[in-house]
Amino acid sequence: MVKKVLKFGGTSVGTTERIQHVANIIKKERSLGNQVIAVVSAMAGKTNELVKLSNEISDEFDKREFDVLLSSGEQVTCALLSGALNNLKVKARSWLSWQIPILTDGGHSNARIINIHVEKINKYLNEDEVVIIPGFQGISKNGDITTIGRGGSDATAVAIAKIFNADSCEIYTDVDGVYSTDPNKIPVAKKINKISYDEMLELSSLGAKVMQSSAVQTALMYDIPLEVKSTFSNRKGTKIFSQENIDYTKSVTGVAYSKDDAKITIIGVNDKPGVAANIFEPLSKSQINVDMVIQNISSDQKTTDITFTVKRNDILKTKEILKNNRQIAYKKIIHNDKVAKISIVGAGMVSTPGVTYKMFRALSDENINILAISTSEIKLSVIIEEDMTLKAIKKLHTIFDLD
Amino acid sequence: MVKKVLKFGGTSVGTTERIQHVANIIKKERSLGNQVIAVVSAMAGKTNELVKLSNEISDEFDKREFDVLLSSGEQVTCALLSGALNNLKVKARSWLSWQIPILTDGGHSNARIINIHVEKINKYLNEDEVVIIPGFQGISKNGDITTIGRGGSDATAVAIAKIFNADSCEIYTDVDGVYSTDPNKIPVAKKINKISYDEMLELSSLGAKVMQSSAVQTALMYDIPLEVKSTFSNRKGTKIFSQENIDYTKSVTGVAYSKDDAKITIIGVNDKPGVAANIFEPLSKSQINVDMVIQNISSDQKTTDITFTVKRNDILKTKEILKNNRQIAYKKIIHNDKVAKISIVGAGMVSTPGVTYKMFRALSDENINILAISTSEIKLSVIIEEDMTLKAIKKLHTIFDLD
Repeated sequence: MVKKVLKFGGTSVGTTERIQHVANIIKKERSLGNQVIAVVSAMAGKTNELVKLSNEISDEFDKREFDVLLSSGEQVTCALLSGALNNLKVKARSWLSWQIPILTDGGHSNARIINIHVEKINKYLNEDEVVIIPGFQGISKNGDITTIGRGGSDATAVAIAKIFNADSCEIYTDVDGVYSTDPNKIPVAKKINKISYDEMLELSSLGAKVMQSSAVQTALMYDIPLEVKSTFSNRKGTKIFSQENIDYTKSVTGVAYSKDDAKITIIGVNDKPGVAANIFEPLSKSQINVDMVIQNISSDQKTTDITFTVKRNDILKTKEILKNNRQIAYKKIIHNDKVAKISIVGAGMVSTPGVTYKMFRALSDENINILAISTSEIKLSVIIEEDMTLKAIKKLHTIFDLD
Repeated sequence: MVKKVLKFGGTSVGTTERIQHVANIIKKERSLGNQVIAVVSAMAGKTNELVKLSNEISDEFDKREFDVLLSSGEQVTCALLSGALNNLKVKARSWLSWQIPILTDGGHSNARIINIHVEKINKYLNEDEVVIIPGFQGISKNGDITTIGRGGSDATAVAIAKIFNADSCEIYTDVDGVYSTDPNKIPVAKKINKISYDEMLELSSLGAKVMQSSAVQTALMYDIPLEVKSTFSNRKGTKIFSQENIDYTKSVTGVAYSKDDAKITIIGVNDKPGVAANIFEPLSKSQINVDMVIQNISSDQKTTDITFTVKRNDILKTKEILKNNRQIAYKKIIHNDKVAKISIVGAGMVSTPGVTYKMFRALSDENINILAISTSEIKLSVIIEEDMTLKAIKKLHTIFDLD
């Protein structure tokens, strides 16, 4: 008996017609004899509608009540999907988080799942019932409704797969799987059949919004095999495993890009020990996430230029903090928000010599200037001028044999 | 310390602006030092929207899941109202039926409240918190969500007033109170300041849809004083008490009418013992509600004509059943659905001689033909031609000193 957790995102359950389609996907799993726990999101647009109502009342809407409000969205989907299954003569039942219960700790809007009671649910699974569970929510030890901050419904699905010891966790969404780069931009982009958790994490942190990162982290931690696939086609999706289960024939798995970065340079900083700490500590305290940092010694060898990147919508705040920082002395600050971050990601990179050189040479051949570089075990990112984005992605996609 | 239950209907909480207005009404009660339990309906239109979604999936949507679906509507209002109160610096908290809990028995969509736990709620009331409770729902002993069939949110409010031993139960709605007749039709209609439970029941069964009848019945049974008032004005509403607390200066309290009746006559029925039972038993078994019945002996004294009224949308079904009824013999069946039922209601009627005569005389003076008559302790109803409705109401309203 195979036990599957199937997660359906907001677009997949966006209309009653789509909910009926999802019911048919589940019916097919049941006809194969599989036990099914379905985790569902709110219907597309529903959560935004509820957020809008709360904003009409207050910009600082009470956090406890905000969770009560939002959780109603997934409740509606649960009921409709269970109804659709019963209509297809497939036994199904919705289980709200207080009925199971799914226990969380942490604050409102930011809770974490700490336990899920399994006895009752296993009993109904063994009686051939489909179990429908709302994603993105639980209850606190006080019995309040809490929503899960990071990872949302994906995190619920992964936690359920872990606690119920499921054989697989399938994330149904509106794309076919994870692609070697953005298929909307680069038509030769290819679907990746297998990818490691780490690569998936790098790709999704770089803008491939196929799955929520913290859910992938949890899957990595507990080695829960995932599959991302489309609700709207029968094609195979992308399987996400631990690295050792993947044969790497290619050094690079994918090319990602993001356009929400900006580059800031502080020119002529007095170079003395602790200057970097003096610059970055106040930024960190203000929740500004600094990504890449480059430091060059300037010609007079007494001052230095420090370049770093932040999210584009943090620029004003960053400059403000730098200007008010009395611990550093510098000539001037310049910034450039017309930049893009291009990354190549691949668990095979570490064992393939020359990947870095090959990337730099390729960009140089296209006359693309590299403004900053950052590297990790499985990722190499560069900052370039924004209008070079497409050219860079195409070139890298080709030279790393991804077309 | 006065403990009040305030119930707000769908129109009263139909927009976030109105919810903020309701929050201000509650804030005012709190500033007077009153403890407040608010019972809320789903925002106007919301329940219909949810029903529509379920209909898109199936005409016979699973009953358990239907209740899960519908209950989300009141949950949203609870959260928004609590948020609005907290935004006004009034401590408030939503309590869903499983958090209290509100226990019910009976089937889905048709449950009855059997118990409400009071300890937790009383604790928070005593700590100066406003308690916000969703109307129309509870949980079964299995822990399933159930909705209350008859009386809905009004029934929840009355049950809570009873179990929490509240000093009053105020039903906020979109009208000022109960009127002597329909103010939209008869401009001289007057708001009734005090009315007995029985009169209220007669009036609401006759189409004055101010409050749900079964909630009034519960209030009558446990002698819970009610007040119906407008959310949108500061005027006094209508108080509903037990009869002995009301001084009757008038024999008639109100004039009601309904236009959903139809009259059926079976002509030339063979008159023998048991004929009435033979006619009406099959109708009753088919859930057709027969209101008034009149039997005349016909000229040949061997046959009789039987006239009765049913709801207008039951006519076809009624005629079908009569035609298939092999236990009765008759000449023919005629029907008239262009009729209206006009009723005068008043607890003072029983002690005032001549009310019946006065009504018949008044209608006769206006050349209005009476097609059927039915009487009770506090009500006198007649069936007349539909186009005479307004004329009849005006006349009766005047002669019974209600203008």
